[in-house]
Amino acid sequence: MTETSPQREFGQLIRSQRIAAIGTLRDGSPLVSMVPIVANEDLSSYLIHISRLAQHTQDILQNPSVGLMIAEPDTGSKNPQSLARASIQGKAVIVPKDSEDYDAQAELYLRKFPDSAMTFSLGDFELYRIDAKSARFVAGFGKIYNFGPADFHAAASLFDK
Amino acid sequence: MTETSPQREFGQLIRSQRIAAIGTLRDGSPLVSMVPIVANEDLSSYLIHISRLAQHTQDILQNPSVGLMIAEPDTGSKNPQSLARASIQGKAVIVPKDSEDYDAQAELYLRKFPDSAMTFSLGDFELYRIDAKSARFVAGFGKIYNFGPADFHAAASLFDK
Repeated sequence: MTETSPQREFGQLIRSQRIAAIGTLRDGSPLVSMVPIVANEDLSSYLIHISRLAQHTQDILQNPSVGLMIAEPDTGSKNPQSLARASIQGKAVIVPKDSEDYDAQAELYLRKFPDSAMTFSLGDFELYRIDAKSARFVAGFGKIYNFGPADFHAAASLFDK
Repeated sequence: MTETSPQREFGQLIRSQRIAAIGTLRDGSPLVSMVPIVANEDLSSYLIHISRLAQHTQDILQNPSVGLMIAEPDTGSKNPQSLARASIQGKAVIVPKDSEDYDAQAELYLRKFPDSAMTFSLGDFELYRIDAKSARFVAGFGKIYNFGPADFHAAASLFDK
């Protein structure tokens, strides 16, 4: 499969980036901060490893609804409106240290961010999985797509491993 | 003044970037999207020019509380945790086309984004000013500052024009 499709472009964007802007609710108002991020292979869930001392973590403990934006970095070379970006909405769920999934999810995270190994031994850090329910993908100027679970699945299966 | 200070670094970051991640409230959940952004000279308010057809605009019309994040782009060259970023919280206020401020604010916006001139003639676009009430500035790993109006003022006055 060499043809391009919005789902394929979505997968390429998501997998090429290391960080996301995360939106949480702080006293009823949106707070946007930065998190390193790792997509699970199915592209419908995303791992973050965050400290209980951070504002976004405190917000998530109050309300697990989050927004994520994963975007092409702005290098100043083109009209900013044409930058590719995906706005994902979903819920953050803790991956408990004693759960079945923990080791595999931690390993996946550390494969992308080996420098974070140290934080996995700190008591205040927890691994969260963000389960996406929908995404709005802007592939470029005027190329806007609304994605649901079937699109995440298509994006994951289209991606060359 | 050549000394560095968090306020100065904040001003440098804000003025060097063209885009922000904007967090709005969509059916009670955070949505994060992208907007081109222009800081006013006092660094306590920020201009965005947005279409009523866009989700973030519809959200703002329901609830003007917004979060902004302006961040150093990730080029992959350093630990993502050390990227500078500012999380700003405030309220979006429309700048009506017949208001006293409109021409000067539109001109300031267009000085940074001349390619947007065309959108200023479209009926569905409006200019909004985001009035910041606070910011959390992460200047690098572990360098975290909480800013209020006095810090915005200091940042603006420290900046070499």
